[in-house]
Amino acid sequence: MTAEPVRAPHALPGFARSTVDGYAVRAADTYGVSEGLPGYLTVTGAVRMGTAPDVTVTQGTAVSMPTGGAIPPGADAVVMIEYTAEAVPAGTGPGTIEVVRPVAPGEGIVRADEDAAEGQQLIHNGRVLRPQDLAMLAAAGVTSVRAHARPVVTIFSTGDEVVPPSTEVLKPGQVRDATASALAALVTDAGGAPVLGTPRHGGIVSDDPGALERALRAALPESDVIVISAGSSVGTRDETASAVAALGPPGIWCHGLAIKPGKPTLLAECGAGTDTDTGTGTGGPPGIPVIGLPGNPRSALVVFRLIGMPLIRLVGGCAAPPPEPSARAVLSRDLASAAGRLDVVQVMVSDGVATPLFGVSALLSVLTEADGYIVIPEEATGLDAGTEVTVTLYA
Amino acid sequence: MTAEPVRAPHALPGFARSTVDGYAVRAADTYGVSEGLPGYLTVTGAVRMGTAPDVTVTQGTAVSMPTGGAIPPGADAVVMIEYTAEAVPAGTGPGTIEVVRPVAPGEGIVRADEDAAEGQQLIHNGRVLRPQDLAMLAAAGVTSVRAHARPVVTIFSTGDEVVPPSTEVLKPGQVRDATASALAALVTDAGGAPVLGTPRHGGIVSDDPGALERALRAALPESDVIVISAGSSVGTRDETASAVAALGPPGIWCHGLAIKPGKPTLLAECGAGTDTDTGTGTGGPPGIPVIGLPGNPRSALVVFRLIGMPLIRLVGGCAAPPPEPSARAVLSRDLASAAGRLDVVQVMVSDGVATPLFGVSALLSVLTEADGYIVIPEEATGLDAGTEVTVTLYA
Repeated sequence: MTAEPVRAPHALPGFARSTVDGYAVRAADTYGVSEGLPGYLTVTGAVRMGTAPDVTVTQGTAVSMPTGGAIPPGADAVVMIEYTAEAVPAGTGPGTIEVVRPVAPGEGIVRADEDAAEGQQLIHNGRVLRPQDLAMLAAAGVTSVRAHARPVVTIFSTGDEVVPPSTEVLKPGQVRDATASALAALVTDAGGAPVLGTPRHGGIVSDDPGALERALRAALPESDVIVISAGSSVGTRDETASAVAALGPPGIWCHGLAIKPGKPTLLAECGAGTDTDTGTGTGGPPGIPVIGLPGNPRSALVVFRLIGMPLIRLVGGCAAPPPEPSARAVLSRDLASAAGRLDVVQVMVSDGVATPLFGVSALLSVLTEADGYIVIPEEATGLDAGTEVTVTLYA
Repeated sequence: MTAEPVRAPHALPGFARSTVDGYAVRAADTYGVSEGLPGYLTVTGAVRMGTAPDVTVTQGTAVSMPTGGAIPPGADAVVMIEYTAEAVPAGTGPGTIEVVRPVAPGEGIVRADEDAAEGQQLIHNGRVLRPQDLAMLAAAGVTSVRAHARPVVTIFSTGDEVVPPSTEVLKPGQVRDATASALAALVTDAGGAPVLGTPRHGGIVSDDPGALERALRAALPESDVIVISAGSSVGTRDETASAVAALGPPGIWCHGLAIKPGKPTLLAECGAGTDTDTGTGTGGPPGIPVIGLPGNPRSALVVFRLIGMPLIRLVGGCAAPPPEPSARAVLSRDLASAAGRLDVVQVMVSDGVATPLFGVSALLSVLTEADGYIVIPEEATGLDAGTEVTVTLYA
């Protein structure tokens, strides 16, 4: 993410260039010419690519030009080669061309500052550089740009039942940590640097009281954002909340969101003022955002797309989020939704029809089968079959 | 890009799990209960997360369940804790609960194979893995997947006027190589591994006859695709074509496309059969695709998005291109277009209005100011102001 606007160090392209293959001329010399009454100009030289012109265009003369060549002094237009013909071929001396179409001043020419004037802003602050931005910077000779560091996002998974994905054989009641690697991918997509918390293998914290708090305290100084897959039972959710609260002010913003799936989401800001070295004012440094996600992998990923990714972009200095792929589609069936709650419904999209996928929030297959999702706004009480909806597509 | 479909090595989640906090019961024990006429069940134990249940549910008994816990033998449903109350608290012996709402068999339970049956396909062949696909693979314990190697895409820039982007001071007539770094970014976006050709600094080849042919010959055995910014003048374009033709059959497919900007694009397949070691049939190995792009950076980038990126995806084994961000917008003014030619028009988008950006194809600023582009199809002769268009947005 760029951390400064970049301005052109000099005008671009920096010299007047021809946009066509042809002849540099004085436009006035071509006024009134036509197929039936061509004008005649003496060719006094040729411009070569990548070099300064060594010839000047004067009244009644022309200089041969390649596309992209530097316009010689005295010329104010370039006639395309298609509107010329060799009348007297150039041998040892100058040749002569016929010109059958007039040109206006400036025609066939890019001005020295037409792509950018000196000092003009080339790229914005707070953006991911697009390929064409890289092209413009390269053209301007700008090979380094101040950028925001990727926010370090520490990811914890909690739960005595959670074991690393590399566990070959599960004991009864165990599940592999499905959420952490997917969260790491979403963090990367949002411009962050994911780190799996390290108290135990792969950032997995047991339900042992105090273990999560110790793990969070250790991660706090090294993180810009902390994300916790907060366990699925009420007990572990309560434990997560108390561990987060113990990290210090300002503390928990909210515990529970009007969103489905994703209701038991916890949002907090912790550890403000603990690092006095970085205090910049009377208020002290801000805290670290902490997101406690629902324990179900599907709910966790849905909430993280909607809330976690924008937060990471914000922390990373992103001024404008990038556009997301989407499609308009017609809903295949009625969808119920409670008013006052945002509903996120996974859908398959085929031939312009969005077919909702159902299943309890514990099921990951609902997400892997989906092409995208639709959001039913809080004020709606449902959507009728046949409604045109916007599907945000998974890229 | 995945190179194989992946199937579930075992059923997922692998054991029947509770989807709620509550009590595992025999559903039949709850039939007919209500707020006014609760049923009473003896609590004989509790399931702990991550462990096998050590208790069986029999008629008239219930077992305390956390969300995600393994369903004990004998139970066929879980009553949510909200629909129960402790009648006799569990002390040293078993307690008793009231149940005020009946459950059906299967309620509150995810079946052992509900996310995936053993052998069921989890991810497709020829796809980029999405975050939720990573989650599903992690849940299944699949930590490595066969994938296509990123196609090696060698990028050359040609032209005596072209100097590396790091050149601090340009001599008159020189321009920095704007295209190569932008092409490298587009190649990466399409799943390829960009390599700047190395005959001279940064893949820049002079207009010296023979230099491009030598550079291409050297790159051919090490490349899956070759891309050339082919110089902007007719002379260098002809030279590119002859250098490409010299690389051997099948040779040039086409030289010139009905697209604006991008007309002087060259498409070829070269070097087939030169590496007899890899011949797999009577036809010998296929050639390497070669794309000769227009010399103007803007034209080159437009064509590469439309033709180069899909080609690289194809070579990289991509079965389905990812969705692109787009927006519907209303055209702010009339756009002319010649029938029989695809027109790519850069636009700014604001408040649902697409404003076309004009300027000769040498101008990069048209691309850096654009939010996206619209394509006017070959059969159209233009678009009227007010037409609703689809803008492909730059991410």
